[in-house]
Amino acid sequence: MPRIAYVNGAYIPHRYASVHIEDRGYQFSDGAYEVVNTYRGRLIDELRHLQRLDRSLSELSIASPMAQQAMRLVMREVVRRNRMTTGLLYIQVTRGVAPRDHKFPRSIKPAMVMTARSIPEFPQEMVDDGVKILTIADIRWARCDIKSVALLPNILAKQAAAETGAYEAWLVDECDYVTEGSSSNAWIVTVDNILVTQPTGRRILAGITRQAIISLAGELGYTVEERPFTVTEAYQAKEAFMSNSSHFVTPVTQIDDAVIANGKPGNLTIELHQRYVRFMEESAPIDSLMG
Amino acid sequence: MPRIAYVNGAYIPHRYASVHIEDRGYQFSDGAYEVVNTYRGRLIDELRHLQRLDRSLSELSIASPMAQQAMRLVMREVVRRNRMTTGLLYIQVTRGVAPRDHKFPRSIKPAMVMTARSIPEFPQEMVDDGVKILTIADIRWARCDIKSVALLPNILAKQAAAETGAYEAWLVDECDYVTEGSSSNAWIVTVDNILVTQPTGRRILAGITRQAIISLAGELGYTVEERPFTVTEAYQAKEAFMSNSSHFVTPVTQIDDAVIANGKPGNLTIELHQRYVRFMEESAPIDSLMG
Repeated sequence: MPRIAYVNGAYIPHRYASVHIEDRGYQFSDGAYEVVNTYRGRLIDELRHLQRLDRSLSELSIASPMAQQAMRLVMREVVRRNRMTTGLLYIQVTRGVAPRDHKFPRSIKPAMVMTARSIPEFPQEMVDDGVKILTIADIRWARCDIKSVALLPNILAKQAAAETGAYEAWLVDECDYVTEGSSSNAWIVTVDNILVTQPTGRRILAGITRQAIISLAGELGYTVEERPFTVTEAYQAKEAFMSNSSHFVTPVTQIDDAVIANGKPGNLTIELHQRYVRFMEESAPIDSLMG
Repeated sequence: MPRIAYVNGAYIPHRYASVHIEDRGYQFSDGAYEVVNTYRGRLIDELRHLQRLDRSLSELSIASPMAQQAMRLVMREVVRRNRMTTGLLYIQVTRGVAPRDHKFPRSIKPAMVMTARSIPEFPQEMVDDGVKILTIADIRWARCDIKSVALLPNILAKQAAAETGAYEAWLVDECDYVTEGSSSNAWIVTVDNILVTQPTGRRILAGITRQAIISLAGELGYTVEERPFTVTEAYQAKEAFMSNSSHFVTPVTQIDDAVIANGKPGNLTIELHQRYVRFMEESAPIDSLMG
């Protein structure tokens, strides 16, 4: 069965799915995106992702390509046509196609692409073993709250991490604070079992999974402090983890050369991971357009 | 006659010219570009543009899509097929097409797109009247020396300028220094007839026209100081202008609410504009692959 992509109103074999060379996404990175995790037939936190997409587009003055209910139908159709049960639904919206000119073109129609990619269930080894982090200077622009496709600094950071054998890069600002990961939010747990993560604002993306974790941690009786933490604080943390839609709560067991605690995933991290998986299992199945 | 674009080895009617939705240029802004001015059958500063493209690609660890001589032949073919005498030759190179993953894919082939667009000769009114500038915070990333397609902050700045009736935005850093324009370099002339422009480095793009102006100004006996200048200094300058490949030396007669000097283009600015036009006229015709 060939993969099918949605491109500007048509369902097309993935292999032939293309956009015009003057799509402003290609020439100007003039667009926003979302990745919605699909877990055993559930679109996790679908509405929050769509709300965030709306916000990104609004901040960029890009019109919404279609009404929310219509978009949810397309999402379901893409999932269905790709027979995706567990995987990632990718949505990209750009300002559209126009002769190259920095200024926003008049009366342009936004372009929308949607793809689905089935992936294996999240590997238990990553939860059992944890991952290694490389810290690196945060050289991004000043509007990281917008989930734009201008991801060049992010991919350079991720690649730098991979080249040192690390799984993810944590970005560090001029005050030695960890802002977030190259494609995830960054967390530590203090000796007092307090969860610490950078507050939302223009320096980081307001992670959907980050927000879910804050809620779940509250339910479990833990305190979350939304404040910046330094690299040194991270080195000396009791636990550390990263979060995003596809990695849930993934333990961090090493940051640069510093082994975190005893080098094993922390108890609170594991508990949150399990709680988050239960949250996904309890989510509404994909057929439903309710909620 | 239809416009023709070059896309990954093929010459295609512009209208149908497309790239795959998983071209990393589209999903990650993972690429670099150049715009080469074509003036009356001359590719202005062609080799310097190609050298800068090489440098951008090298900084991003993207392989060169083809040898320089081959690329120059494609450039000529694109100019020829579009019967372009005066216009803009646009070259974009991205890391290529691969399943979406932040890390650099292994053994990927870079993608290259080239377009040509004929435009009218540079309007004399812009030289006679000058243009208005809006200053705005520079929110870009820390590697503006790379001519990448991650231009989202640039287009937002240009749009903000347009919405106030200004022609270009000058970007201002946290110390109140003007770094450069959203798609041009920024210059002032002091009361002592000294030309001032931000030094090259990671904060600005090393403009090809900027470099030509430095040389031409030297020939004319003027002093150029490559140092940052503040917005206040710009307001009070004797002259001001912007430069890039398509705007040569364009007088600036107003910055925000401040009229520059008597509101007319400055003498030195006009002289440099005329000298730059002569430099273009004296450039080798396009047929030549020499030099």
